[in-house]
Amino acid sequence: MAPMKLTYFDIAALGEQLRLALAQSGVEWIDNRVTFEEWPTLKPTLPYQQMPVLEVDGAVIPQTFAILRYVGKMGDLYPTDPIQAAFADSATDAVNDMHGHMRAIFFEKDADAKTQLLKDLVEKLLPPWLANLEKALKLAGGKYFAGDKLSIGDIAVVARLNWLTDGTFDESVPSAILEEFPLLSSLVQRVMAEPRIVAYMEERPKK
Amino acid sequence: MAPMKLTYFDIAALGEQLRLALAQSGVEWIDNRVTFEEWPTLKPTLPYQQMPVLEVDGAVIPQTFAILRYVGKMGDLYPTDPIQAAFADSATDAVNDMHGHMRAIFFEKDADAKTQLLKDLVEKLLPPWLANLEKALKLAGGKYFAGDKLSIGDIAVVARLNWLTDGTFDESVPSAILEEFPLLSSLVQRVMAEPRIVAYMEERPKK
Repeated sequence: MAPMKLTYFDIAALGEQLRLALAQSGVEWIDNRVTFEEWPTLKPTLPYQQMPVLEVDGAVIPQTFAILRYVGKMGDLYPTDPIQAAFADSATDAVNDMHGHMRAIFFEKDADAKTQLLKDLVEKLLPPWLANLEKALKLAGGKYFAGDKLSIGDIAVVARLNWLTDGTFDESVPSAILEEFPLLSSLVQRVMAEPRIVAYMEERPKK
Repeated sequence: MAPMKLTYFDIAALGEQLRLALAQSGVEWIDNRVTFEEWPTLKPTLPYQQMPVLEVDGAVIPQTFAILRYVGKMGDLYPTDPIQAAFADSATDAVNDMHGHMRAIFFEKDADAKTQLLKDLVEKLLPPWLANLEKALKLAGGKYFAGDKLSIGDIAVVARLNWLTDGTFDESVPSAILEEFPLLSSLVQRVMAEPRIVAYMEERPKK
């Protein structure tokens, strides 16, 4: 089997959860990062004209969460029990719930509009979203979103929280947003301490 | 096993794909439809404070696509081959790509703003989205999105296309939007001719 090849922009956004899952899965993979200048040429060649895509032995898998779930199945990061799998999937869906807002902010060109959208994100959207995630994590036993084992649900949430708090999304998002959410805070630490993820973080392109 | 219970508003939106999947799956299920008046009382009691939710033997599964996939696994509507499953998942993700726009239109109170958003939907957003779906369907062999078997991917797409064309989303969306897309048109006919789906359509609450 040839290495899987992930193609996406050199940003976190939809891609970093896939890179973390690929790293954690232990499969061989190629981290193909495309510039914004290269994108218009590539776009019409892709299914749904979108990135990310994952190439697997000649097949091209489009759509972020389809890719994430595929990698999860290949890398023992997706529960075989359907109910536990549904809880992992629920966490990834919750991450996607926040993506539209963050994407709109990321691409907003008008400075005043961007400031207002960021203020709404931090003050109105993130607090209930984080509280709901904390509650779901508690209901699942407190350690992982799907039972007692790391899954794509945890990885999706952690990648999104990192993007929010590490300054690469926008420096105005306070890194302390997780302070009131002890289970989410521990989850981030637990996932980012996984040896394969530590190794990926050391090797990934530096910003 | 007690019947599964699906709780959602009495609209298509995110719920109809779940109802069609439940009908097609052959499991026993309860179609619990909540009014907009009942919603504020129910909302704080639900995980992620959102509908739809599916109750299964005491567990509450939140998040639309997590529910859809769970029903798919229970009802032989989700491929066991991971690559085919990824194609089914890609189609559901593509449906979700359109949901944010349609949701914004559905809840827009200002008549002029709504008209403009609907014009953008019909003229700018739907044509490439439908063309991409048609292409994905062709690439998959032309009959179903994941190989030669009905899956949740097909059901998600068909439910969304029905919502767009049957007048319940907005009467200004032309029912002829599918005319240029023969594979999608046949898919809608094929899925809506499934005997269990025919039976559901006859029994469901009439608008």
